[in-house]
Amino acid sequence: MKLQERNDDVNNIETKTAYSKLIQTIKWTGEELFLLDQTKLPMEVVIEKQESVNQVWDSIKMLKVRGAPAIGIAGGYGLVVAMRDRAGLDYDDFILEMDRQAAYLDSSRPTAVNLSWALKRIVSKVKSLGRRPVAELFEEMIKEAVAIHNEDRLLCRGIGESGKSLINDGIGILTHCNAGSLATSELGTATAPMYLAFEDGVKFRVYADETRPLLQGARLTSWELQQAGIDVTLICDNMAAFMMSKGFIDLVIVGADRVAANGDVANKIGTMGVALLAKHFNIPFYVACPGSTIDLLTARGENIEIEERDAEEVTFFGERRTGPEGIKVRNPAFDVTPNELITGLITEKGIIRPPFDINLKQRFGAAAKAERSADTL
Amino acid sequence: MKLQERNDDVNNIETKTAYSKLIQTIKWTGEELFLLDQTKLPMEVVIEKQESVNQVWDSIKMLKVRGAPAIGIAGGYGLVVAMRDRAGLDYDDFILEMDRQAAYLDSSRPTAVNLSWALKRIVSKVKSLGRRPVAELFEEMIKEAVAIHNEDRLLCRGIGESGKSLINDGIGILTHCNAGSLATSELGTATAPMYLAFEDGVKFRVYADETRPLLQGARLTSWELQQAGIDVTLICDNMAAFMMSKGFIDLVIVGADRVAANGDVANKIGTMGVALLAKHFNIPFYVACPGSTIDLLTARGENIEIEERDAEEVTFFGERRTGPEGIKVRNPAFDVTPNELITGLITEKGIIRPPFDINLKQRFGAAAKAERSADTL
Repeated sequence: MKLQERNDDVNNIETKTAYSKLIQTIKWTGEELFLLDQTKLPMEVVIEKQESVNQVWDSIKMLKVRGAPAIGIAGGYGLVVAMRDRAGLDYDDFILEMDRQAAYLDSSRPTAVNLSWALKRIVSKVKSLGRRPVAELFEEMIKEAVAIHNEDRLLCRGIGESGKSLINDGIGILTHCNAGSLATSELGTATAPMYLAFEDGVKFRVYADETRPLLQGARLTSWELQQAGIDVTLICDNMAAFMMSKGFIDLVIVGADRVAANGDVANKIGTMGVALLAKHFNIPFYVACPGSTIDLLTARGENIEIEERDAEEVTFFGERRTGPEGIKVRNPAFDVTPNELITGLITEKGIIRPPFDINLKQRFGAAAKAERSADTL
Repeated sequence: MKLQERNDDVNNIETKTAYSKLIQTIKWTGEELFLLDQTKLPMEVVIEKQESVNQVWDSIKMLKVRGAPAIGIAGGYGLVVAMRDRAGLDYDDFILEMDRQAAYLDSSRPTAVNLSWALKRIVSKVKSLGRRPVAELFEEMIKEAVAIHNEDRLLCRGIGESGKSLINDGIGILTHCNAGSLATSELGTATAPMYLAFEDGVKFRVYADETRPLLQGARLTSWELQQAGIDVTLICDNMAAFMMSKGFIDLVIVGADRVAANGDVANKIGTMGVALLAKHFNIPFYVACPGSTIDLLTARGENIEIEERDAEEVTFFGERRTGPEGIKVRNPAFDVTPNELITGLITEKGIIRPPFDINLKQRFGAAAKAERSADTL
């Protein structure tokens, strides 16, 4: 099975921003998938060639690639990696194997909807083509994976355009975790309005929650904003209330791993706490996400499965122990912010405001119906 | 100047609790001061003999000894260490030097009132004795330092007796930072009700916030409760809202570094955030502290100086960098929880409830007047 060069598709989209010069989280050369190992940032910039689907699964599981949109993009290419050595299969075995590999990749992170969304999209596309030669189907898989990647760039830019008017001269913005360039393909989601406002010359400050246990805010968000030249200050998660009480924070923008049909938002653990504090201090709380993060098939946040991760993430930092041996630990990776704490959802289709159940269905319902087979909205 | 053995005074107070077998944070042998280096816990148990007042100052500054009551006790003994080689001074020079050394020790931590309280108490005591031989005054200094230590044990026990009825079978208690045995002399403040309830056979769970940036909850609270056999679970600070939302937390007990006359509480950074979350989820929020922490000379919390500590506490864990080079950091060590978020103050004189301005003055005003020279209440 010969692969064509597809560099142009992926890497040469025109952009005016300086941030496109940031190292790409995900790079598809047309033949090979490269992932930036974010667990080593900001100390080392290591880019790993993905040799097998098992390696891609590990990269997602171990958070080398993380952030809902990036996981979706990586998952799509992961399916390509999984199938590239299956040229000898007949049609039925190819389809069977594609289903099997998609299910395997989907098992690497249970909470982010983008992963299963991307995998289902590629699988559905291939199946919709009917009985064609396997080599041709494989080419279509690649096209679909690349399309998901390119669409994400445009989505992030759309989110930035929708949200940038929220950012005015002199304000302070709090963000949590990394819903930035590193979590997506280019401008990020929560960071997209910041990058575009910065490009327009708006002067603002960003405060990045460090985001325990994996320190995505400290290692990734503060790093990428610093690289871009944006005024960013790192704080510990438990300092957000202090900073709000002293008037440093005028706006909160976070990302989302999944948005339920009623507007409840599953995002990195600690998001709900930030939202509750923002409400207390009357600070607008926005969630930035593309339409693919909005899951109209999930009625409410309480229906979203919350991944509980290894205790060692809390009790070790690198090789160094931070908690006593044998200590019990809780380590939920996400929490669900109730819709009543959310001022608006910044999407590529504009800012969605309450009532979310009605407005989300109106703006994303039709597309959701077209893209998904189920119709239980 | 010959020192008497005073081991009996300090180390042999009768107690029925198992927790007295825990390693002591502060030990005075009658001649020498030993401090447990809490920065090395839970990996190593290192006890350092304090050779000079500079070493004691460093131990306080570097948080080897920390927790408001423990700092007061260590400061008192620190003054003894500072003066023990001053046998040759005449009375006037001894008093001058004592004032100078007390001011020096007081400069090691600005926020905790106990340090200046303990130092002032010893200085006042010595001055109140008038012109006596320097050796005799030095003996009185030691007696006063030992008395502060012993009183703290009794205060902690009193706090435990006042608060233990709040703890019932089956409840979950959240605590923040370490207001435990390691922060005081024996039972701790926030932990004293827990230790006494546990002694009475009450079955409860404790959740310890890890407390960034210095991880006192992970390294100290979870360690000391685990040692005592109490059911303790470690969480990251940003998981408290999740645990509350899921019904795991029925009660919050934290310590205090300073309580203002109106009941505002300065405590470890993050405490205010926990209090706001507790209010949202209708969970009682108690602050445990001895009378020496209640500063009736400070009218409101906004008058309390908040120490801002080094950026490296946030950007490094041990030798390992957690944030990018050159990143801006905010690192306030404390925040102020407004009195309206506090259900009650658990003290050795019982639980003080709102209105705090009236009730604190009533219960602690007279004692405060007697102990302090100023009378501007």
